[in-house]
Amino acid sequence: MSNDDHLHIPADAAFSRRIPDNDDRERLVCDACDYVIYENPKIVTGVVATWGAKVLLVKREIEPRRGYWALPAGYMELHETAEQGATREAWEEARAKLKIDQLLAIYSIPQISQVQIIYRARLSIPQISAGPESQEVGLFDREEVPWNDLAFPTVEWALNQHYSVEGMVSFPPFTNPV
Amino acid sequence: MSNDDHLHIPADAAFSRRIPDNDDRERLVCDACDYVIYENPKIVTGVVATWGAKVLLVKREIEPRRGYWALPAGYMELHETAEQGATREAWEEARAKLKIDQLLAIYSIPQISQVQIIYRARLSIPQISAGPESQEVGLFDREEVPWNDLAFPTVEWALNQHYSVEGMVSFPPFTNPV
Ligand SMILES: [Zn+2]
Ligand SMILES: [Zn+2]
Repeated sequence: MSNDDHLHIPADAAFSRRIPDNDDRERLVCDACDYVIYENPKIVTGVVATWGAKVLLVKREIEPRRGYWALPAGYMELHETAEQGATREAWEEARAKLKIDQLLAIYSIPQISQVQIIYRARLSIPQISAGPESQEVGLFDREEVPWNDLAFPTVEWALNQHYSVEGMVSFPPFTNPV
Repeated sequence: MSNDDHLHIPADAAFSRRIPDNDDRERLVCDACDYVIYENPKIVTGVVATWGAKVLLVKREIEPRRGYWALPAGYMELHETAEQGATREAWEEARAKLKIDQLLAIYSIPQISQVQIIYRARLSIPQISAGPESQEVGLFDREEVPWNDLAFPTVEWALNQHYSVEGMVSFPPFTNPV
């Protein structure tokens, strides 16, 4: 049975952790047919989106970190590009229309097996509003950013790195700050 | 039951495709407890690794595209960074020791829900040899690259983009060529 067959999980499937043939680490393998459920790192795509010098932030309506401010970002879905994922999240969370500029940063968070792909983007229009997963949205000048109420360390990383290349037409992307 | 509990898949679990509460698309959901198996895009990490002007290529011992030449690259594993994944693949496939330089490209292949993160890297020593998934490994000058026997379009993209920034200390990363 092919691993590309997303529909394969019969009602009586029993999975256990063992090392499949031709592999070198434990996986979740179907006892009956050796179908492997690969557990992979997850991709989060997001944006530092600007209108002039202001950056777009969303106040989270959902856990974790409900009530704290974040970039529009979320899990990349099947059958989309990374850029489409970031654009979709900006629409879902902030009803923002934007144009991706270039890659700002890739962060790896191996503790939770997550890779975050964060783009720099420009809003096409300044009209924004809270989507269902947001309490509030806002456009902030640098000195207005709620630095003490950011949801995740990566939000602060991305904002600081964004400001460090503000006005630059092109730059190599950032990674986790050391 | 938390989605972070990787071990949760009891012997009698029955999964069906339906839209979980608070979601907007179909997922594989456990009929008994609403545990969701998220199907996510997969991350491939790889390298264009050089020794002087030569680039490292590996001839694939495994399908798909067995017998064709590729960059050292493969699926990112849990609990590693993207850079560690690329470095690990270079060791597994070509017994290569290298130092990551900077991000060369991110490719999205939405048809197969894959994101490829390709770094530019320098070999620390020119000693390389085939790992278990490679038939052969080699260091190629540009005119020696087996252009007609490359395994995947992304290999050609990455090599061409690599040559277009050869000698540049820093550059914005590439994406799928248009
Ligand atoms: Zn099975
Ligand atoms: Zn269950």
